[in-house]
Amino acid sequence: MGAMTNHDIQVSVLGLGEMGGALAAALVAAGHPVTVWNRSPRKADPLVARGARAAATAGDAVRAARLVIVCLLDDDSVREVLEPLADDLAGRTLVNVTTTTPAQSREMAEWADRVGAAYLDGGIMAVPPMIGRPGASVLYSGSADAFHEHRHLLDLWGSSTYFGADAGLASLYDLALLAGMYVMFAGFAHGAAMVAPAGVTAGEFAAMAAPWLTAMTGAFEGFAAVIDGGDYTVPGQQSLEFSDLTYLVAASADQGVSTEVVAMVQRLVQRQVDAGHGKEGFARIIESIRRPG
Amino acid sequence: MGAMTNHDIQVSVLGLGEMGGALAAALVAAGHPVTVWNRSPRKADPLVARGARAAATAGDAVRAARLVIVCLLDDDSVREVLEPLADDLAGRTLVNVTTTTPAQSREMAEWADRVGAAYLDGGIMAVPPMIGRPGASVLYSGSADAFHEHRHLLDLWGSSTYFGADAGLASLYDLALLAGMYVMFAGFAHGAAMVAPAGVTAGEFAAMAAPWLTAMTGAFEGFAAVIDGGDYTVPGQQSLEFSDLTYLVAASADQGVSTEVVAMVQRLVQRQVDAGHGKEGFARIIESIRRPG
Repeated sequence: MGAMTNHDIQVSVLGLGEMGGALAAALVAAGHPVTVWNRSPRKADPLVARGARAAATAGDAVRAARLVIVCLLDDDSVREVLEPLADDLAGRTLVNVTTTTPAQSREMAEWADRVGAAYLDGGIMAVPPMIGRPGASVLYSGSADAFHEHRHLLDLWGSSTYFGADAGLASLYDLALLAGMYVMFAGFAHGAAMVAPAGVTAGEFAAMAAPWLTAMTGAFEGFAAVIDGGDYTVPGQQSLEFSDLTYLVAASADQGVSTEVVAMVQRLVQRQVDAGHGKEGFARIIESIRRPG
Repeated sequence: MGAMTNHDIQVSVLGLGEMGGALAAALVAAGHPVTVWNRSPRKADPLVARGARAAATAGDAVRAARLVIVCLLDDDSVREVLEPLADDLAGRTLVNVTTTTPAQSREMAEWADRVGAAYLDGGIMAVPPMIGRPGASVLYSGSADAFHEHRHLLDLWGSSTYFGADAGLASLYDLALLAGMYVMFAGFAHGAAMVAPAGVTAGEFAAMAAPWLTAMTGAFEGFAAVIDGGDYTVPGQQSLEFSDLTYLVAASADQGVSTEVVAMVQRLVQRQVDAGHGKEGFARIIESIRRPG
């Protein structure tokens, strides 16, 4: 055998749920030697059929590879599986793509450091069928060396972005982007509910809302420039006074639907207006969020 | 003179605020004979310099044109200006792009019908500098004949969409799309506030959030298919139980920011879970909005 190269590095994947299975499948499809393990072993069968090796225990899987990918249910599951394997992890690289909070990611990074493992935390911005396809994105933070050494392999899952040495950053970005997504989905549902009494289908509304909201994401950059500049009085902005949403709350009530979705935004606007900032720009609503009332 | 054609139809624009001025400017730039009127007459000067004719009174402007565009502050302003001109409006076409509620648009359509004017209501999905440029969209409802007869002219402002004879439809779509936009902006601000304590700038977050939310608008069509199908149990959906946002609310609190933005979405999810629909799809949150608690 020739010298060990990045291309024939042994990889293990612990956890073969929908997401873990998709991650392992992408590695197998690219020709990497992959060992897989799952608590209920039958989940390994389709991967073994495609060329993966199944390990009988999590310890066997860890010992089989220099690079260990962990994709389990939650932080508790990660600790339960990995803590008994502290000695085995020494000298290996751990990539944890389990959904965790920033604090949990940082604690896991400290634990990995104590046991002598390099640690990279990942946040997957995709659903399992998107893995390895355009649009999938995975956010990383923690060991820069681990990211750069294994990037060619991580890129098999989607576009990879590294945020910094703070292992909690990827989770934090992940949560912040998911928050934005769920809030946008609530806004879509609110709009669809408003037009429904007039006989407009959700499909008709979606066909208008998707390009409209896509165009409106173009405003983020301008809001951000104002926020980062720290001066909400710079000219050319829509003022908070002009952004009074009382009419939207009233129109929602007129349509017989809940007002709570738009009333949430109106409260953010109103608190800034009440504090005397009505002539300043709309981006200032972030101050209502930064300083809980 | 030759026969009157659509191309040399006389147009009047009442109201020369930022938006009305932009609408008039686009008509003048395309070579149409345009008469303009504004309560404070100096707003007409830049348009007159480009070839428009200024009318001394709103009545003069209405009598000068077959097609009358109205872009005033609000519904009260429209009534104040037009009601004394009922006799003059007979036989003309009124296009009202003033921001109004659906109910106000319907009342104005009824009034126009009584005075013998054709009525088209418009909702402008753009800021004034976008008028006549890519991305501007104007929604119409009311008289189909008026829309089709003058469409070549309306298309000078942006892409024109006609929704139906109910004059309130354009305003309703307008409000529903604006609601979606403001809610999405609140979601962006929430995400930016979450990452800020970790030293991430709003600009860095915007660079991730804009493409992410753009990609996620791709989910609207699937949600809409489920909503319009009326069966939230169809396979392949993310369940409401899986969409529990307790962890996002907790992570927001951990970051020291207000939880109200994500808690709003969590309430929509929770009410459906509490009603026994936890195994059904996320799109079911629209039922929390349709039926105020």
